[in-house]
Amino acid sequence: MKVYTYDPAPNPQRLAIFLKLKGVEIATQQVDIAAAEQLGAAYREINPAATVPTLVLDDGTALSEVIGMYTYLEALYPEPPLMGQTPLERAEAVSWCHKLSNGLTLGIASVFRNRSKGFRDRALPGPLNLPQIPALVERGQRQIDAILPQLDAHLADLPWLAGDNFTVADIDLYVAIGFLSWIKRSVPETYTELIAWQERANERMG
Amino acid sequence: MKVYTYDPAPNPQRLAIFLKLKGVEIATQQVDIAAAEQLGAAYREINPAATVPTLVLDDGTALSEVIGMYTYLEALYPEPPLMGQTPLERAEAVSWCHKLSNGLTLGIASVFRNRSKGFRDRALPGPLNLPQIPALVERGQRQIDAILPQLDAHLADLPWLAGDNFTVADIDLYVAIGFLSWIKRSVPETYTELIAWQERANERMG
Repeated sequence: MKVYTYDPAPNPQRLAIFLKLKGVEIATQQVDIAAAEQLGAAYREINPAATVPTLVLDDGTALSEVIGMYTYLEALYPEPPLMGQTPLERAEAVSWCHKLSNGLTLGIASVFRNRSKGFRDRALPGPLNLPQIPALVERGQRQIDAILPQLDAHLADLPWLAGDNFTVADIDLYVAIGFLSWIKRSVPETYTELIAWQERANERMG
Repeated sequence: MKVYTYDPAPNPQRLAIFLKLKGVEIATQQVDIAAAEQLGAAYREINPAATVPTLVLDDGTALSEVIGMYTYLEALYPEPPLMGQTPLERAEAVSWCHKLSNGLTLGIASVFRNRSKGFRDRALPGPLNLPQIPALVERGQRQIDAILPQLDAHLADLPWLAGDNFTVADIDLYVAIGFLSWIKRSVPETYTELIAWQERANERMG
């Protein structure tokens, strides 16, 4: 297998943390996003979606969605389990991955990509050149403002997002909170449950 | 278990088709979205995300994401398998669900919710009142224009999105294509592979 990636970006970080916690090493090649290498013909032959990371399997199949990589690698390397240990925990883990993607990561990306000079006409990842929409900056901020208190309330009752066990949902939240710094935000100190979760997550991830 | 739903909407349809194919009946209560019942206090006590469908489990847990409901119900009712039958097929199925959500369903929703008079200040589902952003109509159309040929090319090689077997990814594509009619679009006849898939899917779903 081989991973094409770009270490500083959020989606690559999700996969990197997952592999680290599994204790699995896969040959890795950096794709220079800063130089738009992902948009070149060579990389688009590997992954037409022109996103990172890409996981290329031994049979040549290329996976371009991290949730799919999690699913495949969890089957290959079941220990430690990171996608939930009961039907409910598995359901909660993928639910939270989806909620975080839609409600937090997309909100942060809205703010970042629609106001940064470097992303003019690159408002979404992938091959499409789309103009920035400045109004999405405000919408993104409001989405973030809405989900942070929900996360704080949820984590008052549970140690981890999906329940008693650390899962990929916690990886995704950890990476999303790091992504907040790209738009000069962080978790407000008043969200004490979320802050306490951050400390647990830091410890869990060593 | 109990399902709170609103039959005409896309996410409720995903769950309804899944349950039908599993041959499972769950007590169902309609939430009147047309009358904004989902935003009322009673429903938000059941599902603070104020979205449909909600699946309430026997222990009172409420799942609000369809991908989580699929995951839970697949474990409870494994036959017929609808989330893939090998690690790769499982990975492809969830990958396509994610790609369709981000690239097609969200694109259609962008067009629909940002130009319909009835959605003024309701540009996203959920409790937030967000103003419409007219520029998202054009962006949504371009996202749809971009993913349809990708789907057509992909289905030239495979009978179903995730491979040899019908999965939840096909359910999601089927529902998304129906959702296209909400913005007065359909699959252009030139996408013959996608049209052929539609015929297979219609047959498979009876």
